[in-house]
Amino acid sequence: MKLRFYNARYLDTNEMAVKKGTVCTNGERFSYVGSTENAPENEVYDRDIDLKNDLIIPGFCNAHTHSPMVFLRSFAEDLPLDRWLNEAVFPNEAKLLPEDSYTLTKLAVCEYLSGGTTSCFDMYFSAPEQTAKAFIDTGFRGVFCGAVNNFCGSPKLLEEHYVKLNSISPLISYKPGFHAEYTTSLEIMEQIAALAQKYHAPVWCHNSETKSETEGCISRYGKTPTELMESIGMFEYGGGGYHCIYFTENDMDIFRRHNMTAVTNPASNSKLASGIADISSLMSHGINVAIGTDGAASNNALDMFREMYLCTVLQKFRYSDAAAMPAENVLRAATLGGAKAMELDCGSIEAGKLADFAVVDMRRPSMQPENDIVKNLVFSGSKDIIRMTAVGGKILYENGGFAGIDTEKLYHDCARICERIFAK
Amino acid sequence: MKLRFYNARYLDTNEMAVKKGTVCTNGERFSYVGSTENAPENEVYDRDIDLKNDLIIPGFCNAHTHSPMVFLRSFAEDLPLDRWLNEAVFPNEAKLLPEDSYTLTKLAVCEYLSGGTTSCFDMYFSAPEQTAKAFIDTGFRGVFCGAVNNFCGSPKLLEEHYVKLNSISPLISYKPGFHAEYTTSLEIMEQIAALAQKYHAPVWCHNSETKSETEGCISRYGKTPTELMESIGMFEYGGGGYHCIYFTENDMDIFRRHNMTAVTNPASNSKLASGIADISSLMSHGINVAIGTDGAASNNALDMFREMYLCTVLQKFRYSDAAAMPAENVLRAATLGGAKAMELDCGSIEAGKLADFAVVDMRRPSMQPENDIVKNLVFSGSKDIIRMTAVGGKILYENGGFAGIDTEKLYHDCARICERIFAK
Repeated sequence: MKLRFYNARYLDTNEMAVKKGTVCTNGERFSYVGSTENAPENEVYDRDIDLKNDLIIPGFCNAHTHSPMVFLRSFAEDLPLDRWLNEAVFPNEAKLLPEDSYTLTKLAVCEYLSGGTTSCFDMYFSAPEQTAKAFIDTGFRGVFCGAVNNFCGSPKLLEEHYVKLNSISPLISYKPGFHAEYTTSLEIMEQIAALAQKYHAPVWCHNSETKSETEGCISRYGKTPTELMESIGMFEYGGGGYHCIYFTENDMDIFRRHNMTAVTNPASNSKLASGIADISSLMSHGINVAIGTDGAASNNALDMFREMYLCTVLQKFRYSDAAAMPAENVLRAATLGGAKAMELDCGSIEAGKLADFAVVDMRRPSMQPENDIVKNLVFSGSKDIIRMTAVGGKILYENGGFAGIDTEKLYHDCARICERIFAK
Repeated sequence: MKLRFYNARYLDTNEMAVKKGTVCTNGERFSYVGSTENAPENEVYDRDIDLKNDLIIPGFCNAHTHSPMVFLRSFAEDLPLDRWLNEAVFPNEAKLLPEDSYTLTKLAVCEYLSGGTTSCFDMYFSAPEQTAKAFIDTGFRGVFCGAVNNFCGSPKLLEEHYVKLNSISPLISYKPGFHAEYTTSLEIMEQIAALAQKYHAPVWCHNSETKSETEGCISRYGKTPTELMESIGMFEYGGGGYHCIYFTENDMDIFRRHNMTAVTNPASNSKLASGIADISSLMSHGINVAIGTDGAASNNALDMFREMYLCTVLQKFRYSDAAAMPAENVLRAATLGGAKAMELDCGSIEAGKLADFAVVDMRRPSMQPENDIVKNLVFSGSKDIIRMTAVGGKILYENGGFAGIDTEKLYHDCARICERIFAK
């Protein structure tokens, strides 16, 4: 599909500046981004859209999710962590069927799109092929990582998924990964490190999410989780960690040396009272920072506006400093930072890049006045400002509706899954 | 205007339960709320609306705002508090003209309505008559309190506003108030206490927002702000405080004894790194808690969904307890708690109450599945789920549009105000 947006503004995430002009796509990528005077002439477009000064932004790259977990939304709330896991999450996850992951992921995709998110970095133990099919069928971009641990999956299965899901569709890619140090034996971690070296691939896992996790690793191995993993050659081709709250200076040095990414998950860390990641220090160490929602059991919204806002205010609390964590840094993490983490050629509005973008309705009252549009996006933006979301040049969400998705049927199917799983 | 909503669900904020049925209005109030079988027959309605199982909720009562401050949105960001106040806020507020308050308040009203807010408790030094006119012209419900301090206003002017604005319109009411102890002399506070006694009226002010404010009052008077105000008879007819972060047990006892309200402002307290109000303790002391956004200079959004969410997660951090502050308590504070603070006969969907309500689009993906609708509203709700907002039985916002407001002109007028004020 070829699209032209005229009378447009677009967010340049490299310069963090808003520019006026014309934006064109040609198939899955931007073909022209720039001034209207220099725009190509005599082209024919499938849709030619007067943006009336509305704003094109790169779609958000949600860099840590467990998409099928939407079935647990609002099911397990206001509980202490141990009861949350053992009474609400684990026993119900055990009842998930592979085909449930397909249906539930479609619901997650609708939520992503409604908030301007165009790709997610998904980790879940259950049926990645089914989740991938949901992404492909809806047109959404999904990057996976493995979730191997002592109880579920294996390095062998991980390798099968790696080979299969890296060749299934241009929308899908797959990275080696495991759940976390505290749930995974050293032997399994060594096998995953070997896979990373075989395929020259980055490795991902939950890392230093809680204090007890980090202290446990130190007592087991005399090393932090990051130090342990580096020592067995896990990060020779980079990768990253989710959460990254209890990080030492040396952990940060390791992440920087291996060109790795720390994915922060502020809503999840808030809900579970895990702590506040020091993203100010991570950024000042030169480490790439990306932002993820985590799954709907531990968040509960898959809403990057909420995450960006929390990224700013939680740093202000952490440092007792109203000047901590400028909006620009957070918006960069939510776009370019996520794209780098997920090894996607998106995150900015530039000719040649993947046309993964959203259109912001600048006539929503929370976007006015336009004293500083970047700060408006981070500090007063919310999902209601998104009027369109497109992935790979295809418009998947527009004016509240989802292309090709029968939401009435989808919600009905999700309700049936919940009924079955939660039946006594 | 007489309205009937059928195939409806409505939130009972007394029981915190979702019920099915029919909801009717007759002029400014609900005339029927209950089962469809018992609904009145043979009535003729101006609009008869099939809600298709969508949800009617009480409109949010935003219990602390400075509406005209929208002109400062995103103007003064990521700055330390002293520079924020002295460089960005005060010098620009000094350039506000009375008629600016009218225009800017209309923009604030649009934002309130777009997020399901139906009334606000507004405190601002500038031109309350102009702000009241904006509320009346848009149909929005505004409760004011005075903002007297050593530099601005006087008890005499406060009394004039009190008499005038309490009789101007059914949409408008006015309470005595002053800025805060640290900006107001004991003499002025005593005169306001005398006014409160003359009119049997509650009194409102910023109270214990920062540590230095509270410590300063103790060093000046040997009493906390709350103790000082009580000692001069300020609270004989109740009232309340905004922020209420640095509160002692005795302060809470005083608030409870006088049946007062603590209004919490979590986004503002986060942005300015002021601290986290202990709303868990305030509630367990039996004190009415309400929620406010504060103004757009210190927030920046006028979005009660964001405030409700922050109320929960900040308590979870404060107590390192994922079970802290259940959703139900927060939703009650945002509706009934605010109505009690503002002495409004709203906050619940009941026959005879003011028809100040919003309709939630339950088919937004963040509202699915419906494992627990109250928790969905607080933990995954955002402004995009609001499809209609009505005040006093009049629909003011519907499907993204604002009744009787030319938003293009309004945004243009607001931009001109900003240009003039921010001109070098």
